[in-house]
Amino acid sequence: MTKAARTVSNKTTLDFNAYLKQRAHLVEKNLSKFTAKIPNSPKILTDSMEYSLQAGGKRVRPILAMATAEAFGKKAADVMPAACALEMLHTYSLIHDDLPCMDNDDLRRGKPTNHKVFGEDLALLAGDALLTYVFEVFAQNGKIKTIGAENTLNALQNFAHRAGASGMVGGQTADVYAEGMGTHEAASVRAEKLKKTSKKLSDKSLHYFLLPSSVKETTPENVLRYIHANKTGALICASVETGALLAGAKGADLKHIQQYAQCIGLVFQIVDDILDVTASAEQLGKSNSDAQNGKLTFVSLFGLEGSRKHAQLLIAKAQKALDCLKNVKRKNLTPLYAMAEFFKTRTY
Amino acid sequence: MTKAARTVSNKTTLDFNAYLKQRAHLVEKNLSKFTAKIPNSPKILTDSMEYSLQAGGKRVRPILAMATAEAFGKKAADVMPAACALEMLHTYSLIHDDLPCMDNDDLRRGKPTNHKVFGEDLALLAGDALLTYVFEVFAQNGKIKTIGAENTLNALQNFAHRAGASGMVGGQTADVYAEGMGTHEAASVRAEKLKKTSKKLSDKSLHYFLLPSSVKETTPENVLRYIHANKTGALICASVETGALLAGAKGADLKHIQQYAQCIGLVFQIVDDILDVTASAEQLGKSNSDAQNGKLTFVSLFGLEGSRKHAQLLIAKAQKALDCLKNVKRKNLTPLYAMAEFFKTRTY
Repeated sequence: MTKAARTVSNKTTLDFNAYLKQRAHLVEKNLSKFTAKIPNSPKILTDSMEYSLQAGGKRVRPILAMATAEAFGKKAADVMPAACALEMLHTYSLIHDDLPCMDNDDLRRGKPTNHKVFGEDLALLAGDALLTYVFEVFAQNGKIKTIGAENTLNALQNFAHRAGASGMVGGQTADVYAEGMGTHEAASVRAEKLKKTSKKLSDKSLHYFLLPSSVKETTPENVLRYIHANKTGALICASVETGALLAGAKGADLKHIQQYAQCIGLVFQIVDDILDVTASAEQLGKSNSDAQNGKLTFVSLFGLEGSRKHAQLLIAKAQKALDCLKNVKRKNLTPLYAMAEFFKTRTY
Repeated sequence: MTKAARTVSNKTTLDFNAYLKQRAHLVEKNLSKFTAKIPNSPKILTDSMEYSLQAGGKRVRPILAMATAEAFGKKAADVMPAACALEMLHTYSLIHDDLPCMDNDDLRRGKPTNHKVFGEDLALLAGDALLTYVFEVFAQNGKIKTIGAENTLNALQNFAHRAGASGMVGGQTADVYAEGMGTHEAASVRAEKLKKTSKKLSDKSLHYFLLPSSVKETTPENVLRYIHANKTGALICASVETGALLAGAKGADLKHIQQYAQCIGLVFQIVDDILDVTASAEQLGKSNSDAQNGKLTFVSLFGLEGSRKHAQLLIAKAQKALDCLKNVKRKNLTPLYAMAEFFKTRTY
């Protein structure tokens, strides 16, 4: 950070918890507005979508998008449709992730999961409806004059890329097949099991199930890094990028904010792994299923201290990336710095 | 149709079957190009997406989008990303529809369904990945200069609307709950069953599960019309609209082509209901599950002859709507007229 910049950000005092709460409230109000505007749906479907959308959560993704847009000189309201779309996408992924054929979870944030209330078929459809609505809502950002159609389309395309097979869903796929690797089950044993699931898959290597071809070796560490960068990281990353792209960020500034986004995205999942071990089920609002299922996690691979160290290195790198930004309103960067600090405190 | 217009379209001879085959081939080639461009996904996920995308089908949706864009003066290639996105969206809906918690089908177009080959969890994820990729691919249409960002964003928003809770997914939701209504099970008995599924739903009326508030009475006919207009109709409709909106269609022309789209969309599902009864499982490439499951269909409600009559009235209405178009290349309307005729021949 330059000396001048550091002075500015030190001068700004921010009650980050109050900020998060106020912003989360703003997001929830807008989410309600959007789900109230689905004219031609059976009521049970919109109720099911609304049930999961309003089941709590910190709303980190839309908050990051708004904060980044503000750093690049736009108003939070200028990116509200896209910000809400980010939260909707996150919510659909939770609904589908909880389904019996996936994690089979009964509780989410202390409440019965969507399929426990509405049935498995409707939970599937509510997830599909949300994922589709995500893009209808995101596209509305193009109508906001300070953003326009071109920036919206750019941001939407990048967002879909991060949320799909090359991002979040890719990470979820690897996560499904990596189950058991955290308990040091030999990779070869795992591969044999997988091959028995289908004739079509019988001649496939373990790599086929877990990694893109760009990653060469099928080591537990490579698998873990792929899962973490994509399953949760990609969407956190997309949140920051969405704010930046909607605001028209370009060149070196875009690269630096992407660096921040990638670090924050990875930290988010490492912190989740740490909390899965250190926090109680009550605090998490769900059962500690990852540890119990023997999933591959940062903690299972590098231990608690190793994971904390790694997270803190990433946080420092994220903050350095913010230091390098040029065409930004420096005082508006405070929440992005604070977000990194926020993750730091969550590791203990 | 004006006399001049009718003369032009009569003059044009079109081998429609050859046209459909050639266009389907073009779509399949482009679909392969798009799925080859997913850089960061485990191979199994893209294989699963590709498996269902290349499992055949007439590719009616992208063909309609291309034909409509051509009618409004653009080239088929100008709308190729969006056209492929339409087919991807259709494919995801089939994958999810076949899942055990939905129709639980083992065969689709004569081949094992996606979850039979890749497992239930991966079929869910492949559907999610396709639905997300749909919008990444659609957004690429904005880079084509003859179309631009603004028309692409308009078309994308309309398309997402038709594909989601207010369209296709809404129709699927009603379809799930309407199962059994085709065998004249009393609505009240059905409602009682539904209420037992969840405490949250215990005080709900049948209407809650089946219809949007804009439809007043919960009659089997209203339910059927809602399902048909949305479950299949909405996406057929969106295909035509996508071609028109990308090409910048406006005003009265947009209204007329939408009228055509709505008629064609409804006919498509009525024909499907007729074929479900008259064609063999071999011809359909799937078991006649609708009739066997006692689903509410046009045939179960109006009989075979009544359904045929209704379809033919809609086809005539669709063709009349084409007659009214003004700012179009009349000779390029031939495939849209032929598409209506094509549905007519399929009713026998």
